[in-house]
Amino acid sequence: MGFELSSRIVELRDRLTAFMEEHVYPAEAPYFERAEKADDPFTTPSLMDELKARAREAGLWNWFLPKSYEEGPGLTNLEYAPLCEVMGRSLIAPEVFNCSAPDTGNMEVFAKYGTPEQKERWLRPLLAGEIRSAFCMTEPAVASSDATNIQTSIRRDGDEYVIDGRKWFSSGVLNQRCAIFILMGKTDPSAPKHLQQSMILVPRGTPGITIVRPLPVFNDVEPHYGGHGEVLFENVRVPAENMLLGEGRGFEIAQGRLGPGRIHHCMRLVGLAERALETLCRRANNRVAFGRQLSQFDTVRADIARSRIEIEQARLCTFQAADMMDKLGNKAARTAIAVAKVAVPNMALNVIDRAIQVHGGMGTTNDVGLARAWIYARFLRIGDGPDEVHREAIAKTELRKYAAS
Amino acid sequence: MGFELSSRIVELRDRLTAFMEEHVYPAEAPYFERAEKADDPFTTPSLMDELKARAREAGLWNWFLPKSYEEGPGLTNLEYAPLCEVMGRSLIAPEVFNCSAPDTGNMEVFAKYGTPEQKERWLRPLLAGEIRSAFCMTEPAVASSDATNIQTSIRRDGDEYVIDGRKWFSSGVLNQRCAIFILMGKTDPSAPKHLQQSMILVPRGTPGITIVRPLPVFNDVEPHYGGHGEVLFENVRVPAENMLLGEGRGFEIAQGRLGPGRIHHCMRLVGLAERALETLCRRANNRVAFGRQLSQFDTVRADIARSRIEIEQARLCTFQAADMMDKLGNKAARTAIAVAKVAVPNMALNVIDRAIQVHGGMGTTNDVGLARAWIYARFLRIGDGPDEVHREAIAKTELRKYAAS
Amino acid sequence: MGFELSSRIVELRDRLTAFMEEHVYPAEAPYFERAEKADDPFTTPSLMDELKARAREAGLWNWFLPKSYEEGPGLTNLEYAPLCEVMGRSLIAPEVFNCSAPDTGNMEVFAKYGTPEQKERWLRPLLAGEIRSAFCMTEPAVASSDATNIQTSIRRDGDEYVIDGRKWFSSGVLNQRCAIFILMGKTDPSAPKHLQQSMILVPRGTPGITIVRPLPVFNDVEPHYGGHGEVLFENVRVPAENMLLGEGRGFEIAQGRLGPGRIHHCMRLVGLAERALETLCRRANNRVAFGRQLSQFDTVRADIARSRIEIEQARLCTFQAADMMDKLGNKAARTAIAVAKVAVPNMALNVIDRAIQVHGGMGTTNDVGLARAWIYARFLRIGDGPDEVHREAIAKTELRKYAAS
Amino acid sequence: MGFELSSRIVELRDRLTAFMEEHVYPAEAPYFERAEKADDPFTTPSLMDELKARAREAGLWNWFLPKSYEEGPGLTNLEYAPLCEVMGRSLIAPEVFNCSAPDTGNMEVFAKYGTPEQKERWLRPLLAGEIRSAFCMTEPAVASSDATNIQTSIRRDGDEYVIDGRKWFSSGVLNQRCAIFILMGKTDPSAPKHLQQSMILVPRGTPGITIVRPLPVFNDVEPHYGGHGEVLFENVRVPAENMLLGEGRGFEIAQGRLGPGRIHHCMRLVGLAERALETLCRRANNRVAFGRQLSQFDTVRADIARSRIEIEQARLCTFQAADMMDKLGNKAARTAIAVAKVAVPNMALNVIDRAIQVHGGMGTTNDVGLARAWIYARFLRIGDGPDEVHREAIAKTELRKYAAS
Repeated sequence: MGFELSSRIVELRDRLTAFMEEHVYPAEAPYFERAEKADDPFTTPSLMDELKARAREAGLWNWFLPKSYEEGPGLTNLEYAPLCEVMGRSLIAPEVFNCSAPDTGNMEVFAKYGTPEQKERWLRPLLAGEIRSAFCMTEPAVASSDATNIQTSIRRDGDEYVIDGRKWFSSGVLNQRCAIFILMGKTDPSAPKHLQQSMILVPRGTPGITIVRPLPVFNDVEPHYGGHGEVLFENVRVPAENMLLGEGRGFEIAQGRLGPGRIHHCMRLVGLAERALETLCRRANNRVAFGRQLSQFDTVRADIARSRIEIEQARLCTFQAADMMDKLGNKAARTAIAVAKVAVPNMALNVIDRAIQVHGGMGTTNDVGLARAWIYARFLRIGDGPDEVHREAIAKTELRKYAAS
Repeated sequence: MGFELSSRIVELRDRLTAFMEEHVYPAEAPYFERAEKADDPFTTPSLMDELKARAREAGLWNWFLPKSYEEGPGLTNLEYAPLCEVMGRSLIAPEVFNCSAPDTGNMEVFAKYGTPEQKERWLRPLLAGEIRSAFCMTEPAVASSDATNIQTSIRRDGDEYVIDGRKWFSSGVLNQRCAIFILMGKTDPSAPKHLQQSMILVPRGTPGITIVRPLPVFNDVEPHYGGHGEVLFENVRVPAENMLLGEGRGFEIAQGRLGPGRIHHCMRLVGLAERALETLCRRANNRVAFGRQLSQFDTVRADIARSRIEIEQARLCTFQAADMMDKLGNKAARTAIAVAKVAVPNMALNVIDRAIQVHGGMGTTNDVGLARAWIYARFLRIGDGPDEVHREAIAKTELRKYAAS
Repeated sequence: MGFELSSRIVELRDRLTAFMEEHVYPAEAPYFERAEKADDPFTTPSLMDELKARAREAGLWNWFLPKSYEEGPGLTNLEYAPLCEVMGRSLIAPEVFNCSAPDTGNMEVFAKYGTPEQKERWLRPLLAGEIRSAFCMTEPAVASSDATNIQTSIRRDGDEYVIDGRKWFSSGVLNQRCAIFILMGKTDPSAPKHLQQSMILVPRGTPGITIVRPLPVFNDVEPHYGGHGEVLFENVRVPAENMLLGEGRGFEIAQGRLGPGRIHHCMRLVGLAERALETLCRRANNRVAFGRQLSQFDTVRADIARSRIEIEQARLCTFQAADMMDKLGNKAARTAIAVAKVAVPNMALNVIDRAIQVHGGMGTTNDVGLARAWIYARFLRIGDGPDEVHREAIAKTELRKYAAS
Repeated sequence: MGFELSSRIVELRDRLTAFMEEHVYPAEAPYFERAEKADDPFTTPSLMDELKARAREAGLWNWFLPKSYEEGPGLTNLEYAPLCEVMGRSLIAPEVFNCSAPDTGNMEVFAKYGTPEQKERWLRPLLAGEIRSAFCMTEPAVASSDATNIQTSIRRDGDEYVIDGRKWFSSGVLNQRCAIFILMGKTDPSAPKHLQQSMILVPRGTPGITIVRPLPVFNDVEPHYGGHGEVLFENVRVPAENMLLGEGRGFEIAQGRLGPGRIHHCMRLVGLAERALETLCRRANNRVAFGRQLSQFDTVRADIARSRIEIEQARLCTFQAADMMDKLGNKAARTAIAVAKVAVPNMALNVIDRAIQVHGGMGTTNDVGLARAWIYARFLRIGDGPDEVHREAIAKTELRKYAAS
């Protein structure tokens, strides 16, 4: 009982931390500078390839894939949590360790539902970090937090499916290495509400796909993430075998995919908040105003304490959700995941905002990483389900316990 | 890894829950009605004695005392946490199970520091639930959150100590069964700052003690608690052997005593918040306004979700602190305890306040237990160290990690 | 343009302030001590009668009654605002100046809708401060924030009306000088939704009335207020001419009555918050902890600033609502009143809570007036319409501006 | 008494509103698109010049300059407030009406302290909208919220002053039309603390000036604003007559300049928040999720009401500060300005953040103006004095009222 780490995880974490300090943190500034100046910020710099090679060689690779899959390194979600947190401290780190969104979620989909052929063609190079992938779910015309709203049509035509629709906030779609899209669309509008949707594989080069534009979030194209893109699908034809799991199973796959994706974001955000707090403390210890170190202002000290208090709680509920996923399965852990998915981004926003404030104007620029960190956390109050939707799910569970009899 | 309960604790909790439902909850209304009408609300009603007898017989007794003491039932702090939480659901329950403040803290002091004679005279009847005790630390004239401020003098005079001073918010002091005070005072104002204080035993009947008045908190005398009292000590003489541990050791004892006391309050408040949320949900499921069940208002649902999210996090950080106390000792767990001590009362206030609001006017009365619950939580933002002091301690620890070199 | 006070109001305020300092503040402690010890806290102490006589003599009397009524001193709502604020600084002051709830709202009802006979019998002695009155609207069985829920029946029977029902949170009902109730009930359940209700006068001594009990709010019976009571009406018969304005006009009267009542509470709460902030500052300037004056802690200073910022804003929106009532009428000012009704009690709770925290344990007792002040403010988040209902009204107005066309 | 607008101001506001609707709002998208694609976003597009010509012709020009200056249109600060608010609804509008920061503050400095020659050379073309200006105060190396920290040296050398130092967050400095910098530096480090600083005019083309880089705030270069830049001054020589007011008067000028600058930002932010709320309501009225219009969710409605409540209060305290500036002068209005400077940006952040959330992912992009609006508001919690500094000033004033005697 208790969340102490096993010696194996402590050892992995120490190695990871050392790697972060030696290789990843120093690469952040060059990475983002290059992205800002590059003609296309969504190409992968050689810097990243070198980091990836080094990480893979060191065995710091693919840790995200739960032990239930043979392809992975055999960690539980709970074991992965403190490691993912360390990676989360740097926005560029998840890619280094082949643990970045949306690939992790997509790889788990392949591992869970893919045919041997699909695994060979897509999962193998994804696990090798050779290609990247995208996830196309949200649509501009409808409130996609309610997945039943999705309008993109997937129509059977002989040996093919034909896809028509417009997606946006398709994460990863702009990355030049992105080779495969997992797309959610509607195959049968007349079926019961949760059986109308399907997920299908769409190779990136398929004719009829137009990548309309990137969607910068608070002006950040998020190159590390592969960006969020708007994509138009017009008469896009893929072989029938690209259908995942079967027609009408899209909602089911989405349910399975989103839990891990959400909790991974939470793990990363805990790390990002920890780093923001560290940044705040270092600044406070080194800056003088009105004749005192900032760290001597009680208000700064109170903000540090508030941040520590919030981080501890948010981490623990992330661990708890991961633990329930391991022990009871993703479905039974749904409420615990929802709790973390609301708690963590809001916590991170508080902590990062305080760190920004202590840095003054500099805190709002990219001279420190706080603005980008804030943007990531802010998006997560919307992405993968807005706070409101998760709160509603939690409330429903809670009220049901005391249903009027 | 993970905070799942052992089967032993699950079994104890189930028995405790059954007892609460069968015996404790139904006794709340009569208990408080009697206290309101009694000439002296600080006498123990026969109702309570019956409950205590029943609880003791059922073996639901003294669970608070950690396994390191032979006198207790052998639970760890972490094992006690979920049980104490259940007791915390009712303000009158802790006394029923001989787990109420300030006795638990006092008993631990006796168990840890008491001489065999002191244990025989005070600890034995306390563990038997025959007498109660008080803790006299806070003083009206000085900011007692800084224990070095304490002014009450303890002066050696031959074979005796002579005590002079005024205490208030002395918890438990008004209870008619209270037999013994543990008092903190100053023995040597010229000693180093943290060696000036001592703790001494003062039997209640000792001449020179005046119980000036109860100090109702938001008009609540808190009979279940033994009240908070103002007490005057004038030339109060006790034998020299009543000195605990030795002159100048008061600060040290206080440090050891306060950790468990604080975390027990947190455990109880988690339970109290859970009950408030249950009360809120039941009301929401049963009340109609503007043509809809309250549970159909999204704002009420959002408040329920917020409450669940906050409770989960607060519970986990309480468990974490308890776990660290078990594994690393109370001193090493200090920051974790401080985190819980700030997080939990504030969480409880939020949850209870929402429950009050959903009940309308009734929520502010004693027809439901919410007002009393709120008062208990509100006091705990001050009692046992105000939020500000705990935040300061947390900040100090945090900043030290990144001391400017 | 601008809310500066005319010289007349400045002069009245100065006189009022002087009176408060000389007579009212010193009377607070004796007033409440007596109420706590009295057999019946709802009798009026001679102390109060002396204060009232003195205030009336000094012309500090009945200022609440807007200039549209000949019976009053001819102030506008906006002129009354800064004066009412000063009275609001002390919980016992409104009665001293014959400006206390629920009488002010009731007197305005009499002035506006009363027949000459009703005015002579009830309004005259109310304006003279000889009797007091109660307002009976809320019912325990239904969500009374939706006035159409009200169940108490008022049935015509010859020359009489017969009243049956149970009311609670009937303010003023326990005061021994209370002579007349204004009661809202249902005369015609088959009428359109807002024409079913009527208001009727019920003299206190009428047979069939049982005052069941006071309803202490956070254990405070609020003697200064005449308490909140639960009242049972069983076959209570009053003459037909006691019907106010006419059958089915109850909702209309309620609408007219509640606006002024609400804004008066807001005015008072601004004053109460000002006093809490003053209390906080004085304490901060005079108390030392950890070697520093409390006023030297940045966190305390930040709390003082936050309080000032919140008070200023809340006062201005109270003034604005009063101004709109004067210029556009109570109905057109409805949204402005709702804004103040949500903003002010929440502001006051924040300010008072901070003041409590700075006082430590003492802040929670009646040694300082903060606990009682907090309770008054907390109740006002529910009384006269809960926050939720006012927010809903504001949202409706706002959304209508941009109705989808 | 009351903040109603005179008919003159109502007329001006109506004309302004019509102009905004006809010309400004439609220009926003093209303006920002062009800025994003331009080689240099800090050149002025012809679009802007056309708008300016049109506004000037319509007499919607230079309204910011208070009536105390002959060069302006003769409005008081309070009269300007509701007009500036309307301009603030669009980030590009202030420039259109020649009322944009930092020019307004700089023009007021010229009008107040400039010699006839300085006025002719700089104020005239600024008032004509022909050139723009920058304000160079903040420095990277020191906490510039404490103006006494400023390190840039201004050294007399014969008939010239020589400037050396590094500035950043110099607003307006990147605009290609920027012709003149007002720079604050230190002339005499040995003088009393507030007499060490001076302000001096530095024409943009002066040798020794290097514009190092723009400082994007949350990745927004803020072209509408002229950007925030980092500027290096190395052996920059200007004629002695460029000294403003006299050596050692820099702090005094800064005090006078900052008040109006701050309150103008508040006025604009109130307008921006109003627009965000309008945007939120329109979205809520037009979007469906989970089978309901968003406007039918109580949580959305509560957020709308909260926004309205916060906006009303923030506007009123902005008006109050403007009114005090008019009646008592900028210095006496200092606390009122500080109150608004803390209240308004925080209010705006709340309102805009809610609007973003209701828009989902789109809210975080530049498809709607909310992200840019948020960034402007967020910067203002730091720019022109961080919240902490203003709170401290408010607290000092407050505590002084009750100084321990």
